[in-house]
Amino acid sequence: MYVRKLRLLTPGPTPLLPAAVRAMSAPDMHHRTKDFVDVYVNVIKDLKYLYGSDNQVALFASSGSGAMEASVSNLFSPGEKVIVCQAGKFGERWTKLAKAFGLEAIVIEEPYGSVVEPEQVEKALKENPDVKGVFVQASETSTGVAHDIEAMGKIVAKTDALFIIDAITGLGTMPLDIEGWGLDVVIGGSQKAVMIPPGLAFASVSAKAWEKEKTAKNRYFYFSLKAHAEGGLDGNSPFTPATSLMLGLGAALEFIREVGRENLIENAQLLAKASRAAAGALGLELFAKKNPASSVTAIRSPEGIDSGKIVKGFRDDFGAIIANGQGTMKGQIFRIAHLGYFDFPDLFGTFAELELILAGLGHDVTFGTGVAAVQKVYAEAAKK
Amino acid sequence: MYVRKLRLLTPGPTPLLPAAVRAMSAPDMHHRTKDFVDVYVNVIKDLKYLYGSDNQVALFASSGSGAMEASVSNLFSPGEKVIVCQAGKFGERWTKLAKAFGLEAIVIEEPYGSVVEPEQVEKALKENPDVKGVFVQASETSTGVAHDIEAMGKIVAKTDALFIIDAITGLGTMPLDIEGWGLDVVIGGSQKAVMIPPGLAFASVSAKAWEKEKTAKNRYFYFSLKAHAEGGLDGNSPFTPATSLMLGLGAALEFIREVGRENLIENAQLLAKASRAAAGALGLELFAKKNPASSVTAIRSPEGIDSGKIVKGFRDDFGAIIANGQGTMKGQIFRIAHLGYFDFPDLFGTFAELELILAGLGHDVTFGTGVAAVQKVYAEAAKK
Repeated sequence: MYVRKLRLLTPGPTPLLPAAVRAMSAPDMHHRTKDFVDVYVNVIKDLKYLYGSDNQVALFASSGSGAMEASVSNLFSPGEKVIVCQAGKFGERWTKLAKAFGLEAIVIEEPYGSVVEPEQVEKALKENPDVKGVFVQASETSTGVAHDIEAMGKIVAKTDALFIIDAITGLGTMPLDIEGWGLDVVIGGSQKAVMIPPGLAFASVSAKAWEKEKTAKNRYFYFSLKAHAEGGLDGNSPFTPATSLMLGLGAALEFIREVGRENLIENAQLLAKASRAAAGALGLELFAKKNPASSVTAIRSPEGIDSGKIVKGFRDDFGAIIANGQGTMKGQIFRIAHLGYFDFPDLFGTFAELELILAGLGHDVTFGTGVAAVQKVYAEAAKK
Repeated sequence: MYVRKLRLLTPGPTPLLPAAVRAMSAPDMHHRTKDFVDVYVNVIKDLKYLYGSDNQVALFASSGSGAMEASVSNLFSPGEKVIVCQAGKFGERWTKLAKAFGLEAIVIEEPYGSVVEPEQVEKALKENPDVKGVFVQASETSTGVAHDIEAMGKIVAKTDALFIIDAITGLGTMPLDIEGWGLDVVIGGSQKAVMIPPGLAFASVSAKAWEKEKTAKNRYFYFSLKAHAEGGLDGNSPFTPATSLMLGLGAALEFIREVGRENLIENAQLLAKASRAAAGALGLELFAKKNPASSVTAIRSPEGIDSGKIVKGFRDDFGAIIANGQGTMKGQIFRIAHLGYFDFPDLFGTFAELELILAGLGHDVTFGTGVAAVQKVYAEAAKK
């Protein structure tokens, strides 16, 4: 068709909040001025609101992986034993990071689409009382599954090990009770539920983690948790901060305060619920065998249809970008995101588009079926 | 719901083209510099492409009504006889303008939702051989009907009268063959199919009109067609031009060149066709008795439901702005726009929302029915 609007339906980058875009085009700002110091201090305060915890927050000019690296290099010494829960591409990243910094990783591996169970972590901890840390994804973006962070947290909290959570797509899409569940490091990224472009990572760090940090010996310079957490206290960053992104983050966090962090989570949960219902109505199978995530819904491509064709249909026919499977899942699944600035009208359009694309690929579709399933979830939620 | 994106579904202002928004936030520009002169000259050249005619174009810093006023005050003398085709709120504006500038208006009035037929204009011209001008709306935005500009133009062209067309929502949504059909003045506005904010009006002026302009005597200063058309020739505007809007207009016209003016029109026509199909599928009645416009579809609210409640539902439940009826039609109709930067996913969302709103108001709706009708029109068009 002739007019096609670009629409990001991917689990990061996600659609930008207009107020954040406006804030990012504010006048030039120097990072050593009072004006910027105020921005920085406020952003940290508002990040604590988003985290729902008073734990110190370190904010980095980097992708989310930078904060993941900091939590490995700053808190553990070479040779220390850690457990990695690995059930997807981002779980594998923890394993690679542990290796890069000389840790001895006990990898609990589950196939893509499955989850690591809390009982498996409990068993590994019992068998290895000298474990110093447990690494996991809250939401494994590559497969669309969520881990049971509450149950795992309560298990790890009984030990000396730190519980380190990649919540890059979990933050703002699922409840994470940092203090109640004993979540020592919780990592987030800017291009996810906080609705701004990539370039910022943040980590909430517990007192237990800071205690361990004091004795940990490893090699790092830029990715210093301590220097970045301290920078946030007085608004003086250790290195040049990404000023425009921080102005955008400030505006986005203000929006999140207005909406309410619980409601931001419920928004994603409802969109995910509606997407699962629509997939079911269209006779499509979810990729998650258990615990489907609220950040992103991974759907199996119908038998005989390469999911790349569905991704291409979204892009060519409607200007919409959805995510294919990553790695070995490429061609098998496609993923529709719910984290951050997504609403129901986005989803009405997404499923109407999907129906047209599937019909065009020869799949048996009754137009409106998936959309009606989304509408039904909306109508039920609106009644409450 | 918690996240609701603002979506303009109104027939002006219409959704902004992102490239135009970016252009409007370009660095400060002074209107008497070579840089801006180039912008101005290019905008006029591109407006001629949009008009599909080499007739001179006058560009005003004003709303569309300013160019309507210029075409009355610059081309006619007090006491001259003109015909006004009046079938809606904007037809009434021509009558008011004629009166304000002392013209003797023969008003051919048809009720809201109807059109003035070319035969009526022909008859009035025969009965009044001294008529100097005929005023009409190409698309009457208030009621969602289109006039038969081709037939009328060919009738008026045989006389000495000028044919003056308010094409504020007609330009870019319906074919207008300026030279082939004898369209002397064709008026457009920035917040319509050219996808930028309000604040600019433009008029394409024929040689026949310029000839009449030489002898016309009336009172005006700012709204000089001649001064503004001449300003466009060398890029030196008679008064301070609206520089940021003109930068935006330049970017929007570049987009229109890329899409193609015929395709921009077909885009609106397809969206209008799909909206009529969806209304029908939902058992709703169109307000247009004949010639439904492609700029906007006016739909009657179901028996017993005030259309204000539908408008409110769009806004409160989904953050979407649709237009109520104006004047006496308020409460009876609602209007969904297609002009400019609208695509099919917009329409999938709009009808899914409408179905939910109507169901909430007690109207019998099967979810997905209207959306499926839109999908069918898309699928048929995509086949070609």
